[in-house]
Amino acid sequence: MRVRNWITDVWRRVSLRNGFEEYDAPIFEYLDLFTIKSGQEIAEQLFSFTDRGGRQLAIRPEITPSLARMVNEKINALPRPIKWFSIPRLCRAENPQRGRLREFFQWNVDVIGSDDVQADAECIFAAVDFLREVGLTPNDVQVRIGSRALTVSVLNAAGVRQVDMDAALAVLDKRPRVSEDEFARLAKAAGLAEDQLAAVTRFQACASVEDIRKLLGDAQDVGGAIESLAGLWRYLQALGAADYCTLDMRIVRGLAYYTGIVYEILDTGETLRAIAGGGRYDNLLQVLGGPNVGATGFGMGDVVLGILLEEKGRIPETVRKRSLEVFIIDVNEGGFEGVLRLAAKLRSLGLCAGYSYKRQSMGRQLKEAGRSGADCVLFVAKMENTFAVEIKNMRIGAQASAGSLEQFVNKTLAEIGAETEVRFPQAGRIVDALFRKLLPE
Amino acid sequence: MRVRNWITDVWRRVSLRNGFEEYDAPIFEYLDLFTIKSGQEIAEQLFSFTDRGGRQLAIRPEITPSLARMVNEKINALPRPIKWFSIPRLCRAENPQRGRLREFFQWNVDVIGSDDVQADAECIFAAVDFLREVGLTPNDVQVRIGSRALTVSVLNAAGVRQVDMDAALAVLDKRPRVSEDEFARLAKAAGLAEDQLAAVTRFQACASVEDIRKLLGDAQDVGGAIESLAGLWRYLQALGAADYCTLDMRIVRGLAYYTGIVYEILDTGETLRAIAGGGRYDNLLQVLGGPNVGATGFGMGDVVLGILLEEKGRIPETVRKRSLEVFIIDVNEGGFEGVLRLAAKLRSLGLCAGYSYKRQSMGRQLKEAGRSGADCVLFVAKMENTFAVEIKNMRIGAQASAGSLEQFVNKTLAEIGAETEVRFPQAGRIVDALFRKLLPE
Repeated sequence: MRVRNWITDVWRRVSLRNGFEEYDAPIFEYLDLFTIKSGQEIAEQLFSFTDRGGRQLAIRPEITPSLARMVNEKINALPRPIKWFSIPRLCRAENPQRGRLREFFQWNVDVIGSDDVQADAECIFAAVDFLREVGLTPNDVQVRIGSRALTVSVLNAAGVRQVDMDAALAVLDKRPRVSEDEFARLAKAAGLAEDQLAAVTRFQACASVEDIRKLLGDAQDVGGAIESLAGLWRYLQALGAADYCTLDMRIVRGLAYYTGIVYEILDTGETLRAIAGGGRYDNLLQVLGGPNVGATGFGMGDVVLGILLEEKGRIPETVRKRSLEVFIIDVNEGGFEGVLRLAAKLRSLGLCAGYSYKRQSMGRQLKEAGRSGADCVLFVAKMENTFAVEIKNMRIGAQASAGSLEQFVNKTLAEIGAETEVRFPQAGRIVDALFRKLLPE
Repeated sequence: MRVRNWITDVWRRVSLRNGFEEYDAPIFEYLDLFTIKSGQEIAEQLFSFTDRGGRQLAIRPEITPSLARMVNEKINALPRPIKWFSIPRLCRAENPQRGRLREFFQWNVDVIGSDDVQADAECIFAAVDFLREVGLTPNDVQVRIGSRALTVSVLNAAGVRQVDMDAALAVLDKRPRVSEDEFARLAKAAGLAEDQLAAVTRFQACASVEDIRKLLGDAQDVGGAIESLAGLWRYLQALGAADYCTLDMRIVRGLAYYTGIVYEILDTGETLRAIAGGGRYDNLLQVLGGPNVGATGFGMGDVVLGILLEEKGRIPETVRKRSLEVFIIDVNEGGFEGVLRLAAKLRSLGLCAGYSYKRQSMGRQLKEAGRSGADCVLFVAKMENTFAVEIKNMRIGAQASAGSLEQFVNKTLAEIGAETEVRFPQAGRIVDALFRKLLPE
């Protein structure tokens, strides 16, 4: 849970600083929404059910259809480009295996209402911004960028009919993950002739925009797809993200709704499934009853990402540590009232403070403090008219008096700025400030 | 979404500082888990379905059964008391109405493995700590505390048989929300005789521990339930939470699994449903196949709470505001590369930075900046060998040169400590520091 929260917190933080706003959608939708346009792969993986009203529903296996449905409803009220993100819980009825679970979380980042390749560049930059933040380097992962538009154009020119296109793309999507023999068998089954296969293989060998220009020429640049790739590359360079990116024309993506630039984020060791996948899906809103507006975005799941972060040792120790900052101990009969008063005060200032439910010896309470991982222990003793407080730095063992409870609460905490300055994310600072104030080394 | 995130962020923050650790459970469970012990009210509100393997499943309508199931599995490995919280998405198939939606979020705070009433006090304190943090006062809301144990004891003494107990409690739970006539009708239907009703009504009129002691005496204090109430009250006073709490023996809670102290948080105007409800459920883990350990906790939904916060005007303006901090504008041909370089740099420092996808006039870009709500605008001009940067404070309109892009990025940002100090929650400070540095008023 701590690791999942760390990942989702960074997802949210990176999204916001890239100017995306968060949305959410219901956990289930009408079944139709998912089967209309996402293709067979998704339809086979649905947890679907019928409610008491006889409605056919399904737990969401992805959130893009919900996004399109919701944006369609408000399309005229929303200033464009619409830059939205979400971190939905998704369910897919597939066999659990390494990198795939039946239930998972997925970061979704989308720009709707812009045909400009800048939108694609900004989505990819957000992904790279995240990868950098969690310490994954260009040596660990690469965004492999292809073009569904150019792939379709090449297949078209090679004589693949429109009705066979989805099957051909589905086979090409599987190509990097199966043997060449298996791929040849699948391609044949999908009706791809040998010369068609050769044409697409030549295209997939292109490693740069120049290669593609040389192979296809301007005649085959349908809708400016080569120019889009070239522009995307320029923007990624200006954004300082190009070191994380590689052109790879084998990338076509499995979902049926993609139309333009497509990409997957893969570990460079290629031992794992894709960490993320995305691209342009210009027709989805229209198919779902909306206007003809451009859209692009990606999804990044938490499962494969979590495996990679674990393997590379990039999960910070502080994430795994239990986050108690102060443990409060009563040292004599009647001290417990002071423990409760101090705990309430420190918590209201944003400090994670704990104490033992058991009125037991100081030694046992200290052991509980140790197990809690607290940096700081406060000892409370009942005196005649007040409580006396002592402070102990559990990291170095030093201990000193902190005066009376009233002094500590009304004077010391105020002097270190705890009353005004400290809120949760900076809470650790109070402890350090307390040590500086009361336990100078 | 912004309001929901604000509420869930405060829930999480308050839970952590009170020493609770977060957990989550699957969005669906075996149907049985919910029907075994939660009672009829929950069973009627389930979204249930059968998966391909023929398993009877249900989307979770509450998370406590999942908590009990999970803790049971690891009970011997977990140091007690087990202090856990969760913020699950829940679904109930009921008619949407004011304060009730089919899908909602609920803060769950539980202590398992302690029979001590301190655990109940700590849960209630966490709720009060939250109410204070969001600005709800004791005049707005009260935790109304009853005792399922004492209510059962009174019903027992009045001759209500064990088999009729659940029905009697269900009727008493409805009492505060229906007319006295309607209640009399329901009580009769549940088999409560007039003298039994009179006995329980006398008990429900008690407003303090002393009243209860006087009415029931020690003989009827089954399992020390009066002592528990008295202890709870002392702890709540030491924690400074008693001003948010009222004893109210009419509170019995609807769910079948409660056993001891129970409570609801209600708006003092009593125009809304309960904001939260909870109590002790000592038998649930055992019923679900685990050991006999004490457990207590509460759930607080986001729907009624959201209505109350809205009505009382307690949702901060900053929560509703779109959170863009810097908007970057190109002022001449070629300046856009500098815009992208600056955006990437500022975002990596944690600032929410945006720019226009359209290469359009400065005036139009400024308008977009205004719509974005950015506090700060940076203007970027392409010069011969570099980019020149100007800064504008959108709050007061002042504007000044910020030197070259290299100077700004390598020198100015470092001088204000942006490189080392600033991360997301403090990001707003960079803007202010920039103004102090470059635009002294």
